[in-house]
This record gives sequence, structure tokens and C-alpha cells, in this order.
Amino acid sequence: MKERDTPARRPTTIREVAEAAGVSPTTVSLVANRKEDARISAETRRRVREAIERLGYRPNALAKTLVSGSSRFIGLIADAIATTPFAGQIIHGAQDEAWKHGYALLIANTEGNEQLERDAISMMLEHKVRGILYSTWFHRASEIPESLWEADFVLVNCFAEVAGVRAVVPDEVQGGRAATELLARQGHTRIAFINATTPAPAKDGRLAGYRAALDDAGLAFDPTFTLEAYPDQEGGYGAVSELLDTGATAVYCYNDRMAAGLYDGLREHGVSVPGDLSVVGFDNQEVIAAHVRPPLSTVALPHYDLGAVAVRRLLGLDDSEDGVIKVSCPAVERESVGPPASAGPALHRRP
Amino acid sequence: MKERDTPARRPTTIREVAEAAGVSPTTVSLVANRKEDARISAETRRRVREAIERLGYRPNALAKTLVSGSSRFIGLIADAIATTPFAGQIIHGAQDEAWKHGYALLIANTEGNEQLERDAISMMLEHKVRGILYSTWFHRASEIPESLWEADFVLVNCFAEVAGVRAVVPDEVQGGRAATELLARQGHTRIAFINATTPAPAKDGRLAGYRAALDDAGLAFDPTFTLEAYPDQEGGYGAVSELLDTGATAVYCYNDRMAAGLYDGLREHGVSVPGDLSVVGFDNQEVIAAHVRPPLSTVALPHYDLGAVAVRRLLGLDDSEDGVIKVSCPAVERESVGPPASAGPALHRRP
Repeated sequence: MKERDTPARRPTTIREVAEAAGVSPTTVSLVANRKEDARISAETRRRVREAIERLGYRPNALAKTLVSGSSRFIGLIADAIATTPFAGQIIHGAQDEAWKHGYALLIANTEGNEQLERDAISMMLEHKVRGILYSTWFHRASEIPESLWEADFVLVNCFAEVAGVRAVVPDEVQGGRAATELLARQGHTRIAFINATTPAPAKDGRLAGYRAALDDAGLAFDPTFTLEAYPDQEGGYGAVSELLDTGATAVYCYNDRMAAGLYDGLREHGVSVPGDLSVVGFDNQEVIAAHVRPPLSTVALPHYDLGAVAVRRLLGLDDSEDGVIKVSCPAVERESVGPPASAGPALHRRP
Repeated sequence: MKERDTPARRPTTIREVAEAAGVSPTTVSLVANRKEDARISAETRRRVREAIERLGYRPNALAKTLVSGSSRFIGLIADAIATTPFAGQIIHGAQDEAWKHGYALLIANTEGNEQLERDAISMMLEHKVRGILYSTWFHRASEIPESLWEADFVLVNCFAEVAGVRAVVPDEVQGGRAATELLARQGHTRIAFINATTPAPAKDGRLAGYRAALDDAGLAFDPTFTLEAYPDQEGGYGAVSELLDTGATAVYCYNDRMAAGLYDGLREHGVSVPGDLSVVGFDNQEVIAAHVRPPLSTVALPHYDLGAVAVRRLLGLDDSEDGVIKVSCPAVERESVGPPASAGPALHRRP
């Protein structure tokens, strides 16, 4: 391990402090930014502060140096370019914004492979990128890869519980509220929500938004109207009987894929959309939502904006504080929502 | 216009010859590669040959120079990263292959905008890319943008009728044959094909493959079994009545989206898949094909391989001749194909 007590030609990096103190860069960040975190012992804090002082580390010094010494590239790491349509929209937004400011994107696709991710970050650092956008295809908490600390970075569609880390994510609560409002606004009072079985910020946020919208509409939250299913077509299809048993006149599905499967099941039960039952999705996965019968009203994930806002934050073009920024999810109205049927859809069920 | 009769420091480019002769780079390429093309007059040929001689232009000289003077980047231009899942798979394949050989991808998304395309090519040339992969989201003939001639390039999922231009495209004929074979192999003799209404190499190729597979199976081509519809869910849905009128026991759809819409219409007519009618799609658009009921047997577009093969050609790692290479489309069997029903599905139609 190299230690330098004499002034170095380039600023000390967070990794060097971490190595000197025998801790992770995350721990250094927490201590350097004076965040209290119960997981860090007093002894560790002391050791980190000693290393910071001895090596002359200043938080963000590396990032600032990179600005002057960097190329006109911004790196973008995506974990699923090939398997989902969402990464493409983040890329589109990030590229438009980067080009406005004279930067090109250096994009790497990792398909969730950690070795590829390390290779991608190394490649970007070698090319002296101005910074790195680290993106995930679904909104989730993320570990920060060690080598990412060597760059200025912004998390996109993911976030980390680490002081001073910038992230841009969709506002799931507002989105869930917007979805539910599409139904409440038509006068529905028995509005079901089929949530995902899989834990995710979207699961908690979309439920919170649903409850907030019911509140706004003066409707009581009734847990019998909240179901769960796997968030794909098969999950939606399988939830039909249980949904019809609730007597709901409207349903908001966790995502568009679930709504598409629900459509198939409803058709088999002779329940028409929106005549008997109004349906709203989430995601605005165009190839599905715009082309099912009837076309699905939904709420759009703002992936284009996530990419654009992340570039602005990376380049210091917004005046936001560090931390997480939530981008709102706009409603997209199509033809799957109408006023409540006079009787619930249960009356229309085939025996 | 600059003219140099003395040896230049760098080789003459095709654009310089084109400017000197007052023609397009395409015309220079045709003349330089001694291809006969009726559209080029004797006078133009003479002018181009004179400019080639005077400026000391050698075909491919620039490309060869770029190899030595270039960076470790390969440019990839895509016209629809954000709106289709297909560009992502080309990127995935190109990246995997590029990384193997120490190259990073510099990706630009143009969404079909010509100004963005020019900007993207300029950006890549500034960064001295080793070469450029020029890709389109659907398989089609493409004009070659003027500035692309300044780089070594390979067309991906598109092709140009210009001598010496390398292209990598899907083998639509083989794919159409594979799709039809999935049905013929089960003993179907009345196999319909719903082709696209939109002209495209896929339309001609998939039809030719269908006819070839019928031939292989000893079945006569009967034009009443060939319908046309717009290649999306609405098109498939709208084709149901006409399809059922043919008395076919099996149908191969131009794409998966069409098959998904067909499913909806068949359900309304009480026709079950594959009990009454076997259905095959094309594209393997995963989010649809794998999740409709029943999951759809189809033929995969080889986008990953298109990207990988294009990188190998660009780097001179294959020994193929210049021109177009066709990559085969593998069958993906799911649950939508079975043996023929004893009677045609028409018997099962609701009044």
C-alpha cells in the first residue's frame, strides 16, 4: 500500500483513503460527509479521520479535478439494454442532453454481470469520462461498485443510502396517485389495486399513491380491494377470479403486462373493458399498452427524463442539493376507463 | 475547392474525389470498383477516373489509414434505441464482440433524424473511431449518408446497392421457411400466411421462405391462403374473419405483434390455439411472444448475431468477401402449434 505524506501531484482519491484506513469507500464518504451511521464504530471513524488528514483528502476533489482533466465523454452504464425497452429511453434522454452541452455518450451494457460492470467502469475511467451515469432497468436500491467512486457519478433509476450520492428516480407515489385518480375521477368508489408480489420501491410507492388518491377522493382504504400477483401477463391472468370476487368496478394494475394478462382472463369471463370494468396499468410499455383491446390507459415511467435530468446534475447544470430527485410519472389516457357500470362485474360472470 | 497534385500527408478521401469530379461518393465508389451501372454516363466515368488519377486516390486507402491512426473505439449508429427492443440486441452483440478485441463502443441514437445522424458521424470521426456500424431497427435498403464514406463502415440490418459495401442482415427467406416448417412438420396441409401490407425485404423474403417450405413439404402454393394485414396487433385482429374463411388449420403470421392481435380475435370467435388452429409468429419479441396465451412459437430475429458479425467484419476478423452476409433466424418453439384438428376451425365459429 502506497502512502504519501508529501503533497501529491494529483489529489488523493477516496479509494486511497479507504485503503489506508482499511474500510470501504462508502464508509469514507459517510465519515467525510459527517453523516451519523450506527453501523460505523467510533474506532473506525477515528481511523478514517486520521487517514483523511494524513493523506490530505478533500471530498469531491477528484471529481473536480476530473472536470478539468476530462474528455468530452459521459459514461452510461446500463444493466439491461438488450432485454427491456426502458434502458433505450434513458439513453435517448441522456444523449439529447449530453449533446446539447458538447458531450458524447460512452455506453456500456452489463446485463447484470459484475465482471462486465467492472470492465465498463475501467474502460470509462481510461477514457477520462467527465462522469458516469449508473443506471438500472427497474427502480431499486443499488450497491455502488467500488471503482465507481473514482469518477463523478449519478445513479439513474436506482439509489443508494449513502451521504452525498446523487440519484434520479421515478416518483412512484405520485405515479400511483395519478393512476388511481384516472379511476376515481370517473366516479368509481370500489377501486381495486393488484400490486406486485415482488418487493421493490415501486411496490411500496405505487401502493402509497393508491392510498393517497383514495384519501383525496374521500374513499376509505379497504384492504379487501388490494390483491397481489406476479408482475407479468401470467400474474394478471391468474388474478381475475379473485378480482371479480371483490366486486370492484375498476382496477389499477401494478404494470401494463399484468393488465394485458388480466384482459385475457376478463375476456374468458365475459367481462368487458371498460363497460363492466375500468382498467389502468403502469409503465406505458408502448408495444403492449397502446395495442391491447381496448388500448390501455396507464401512467408513463419517465425514463427519457431520468436520463436528461441525470446529465444536467452530473454537469452541475441544476441547483439541486445532493441526494435523490424524483421525476413525475404522467398519466397516458387511452380507452380502458369509463364510468362505473350500474352493477358490479360479478353479475356478468359466466357460471 | 482544394486540389493537390503533390503527394499529400494523408491519403485522398473518397469525398475529395467526389468533390473534384462533382459527383457523389457513391458514384466514385462504383467507378473506382469498376462496377458497371447504367445510371452513370461515360462522361461522368471519365471525369471520375481523371479525378482519381490526379488526386492519387486508392479505394479503401482511407479505411486502411484509419486502422493505424485510429482510437480503440467502434462507433455504432442506431435509428431507434428508444422505441424498439431490437437496437438493444444489436448493441449487446456488438459490444460483446468489440470488448473481446479491446474496443469500446461509441453509441449514438438518431431516432431517424438526419441532423442527429450527421452530428453522430462527425462526433465519431472526431474521436477517430476504428470504424462505424450503421444500423437500422427494421431490415431495409438504406442510403449511405455522405459523411459515412469518411470512415470504414459496415451496415447492420440494412444494405445498400453499392459495390464493395459490407452489410449484415437477417436471412428472411430461411426464417420464413423455418416458421412454415414448424407447421408443415405437424402434418398441416392448409397453412395460411398473413403477410405485411408494408413493402420491406422481410415481406418478400418471408413469403419466399413460406413458398419454399411448402415446396419442401410437397404442398402446392395456393394464393387463397396468403392474406395481408398491417404488421401490428390491430392488423392481426382485423384479419381473423378472412383467415377463418380460408379453412386453414394453421397460420404463420408476419410478426409476433400480428399474432397477438390474431389471438384476441380468435378468442372472440371461439377458436382455440392450438386445438383448432396452430399459430406461428416471427421476431421473437420476447415480452409478447413468451407471454401470450398460449405462449407463441416463432422465429427469432438474430439481432445479437448481426451486431457481433458486423464487428468481426469491421475488424477484418472474418474472411468473407465484401457485400451482404445473411444471418439465419432460429425457430423458437413454444405452445401454439399442434397437429391439425380433424375439421377446420370454420366449424367452430360462432354465428
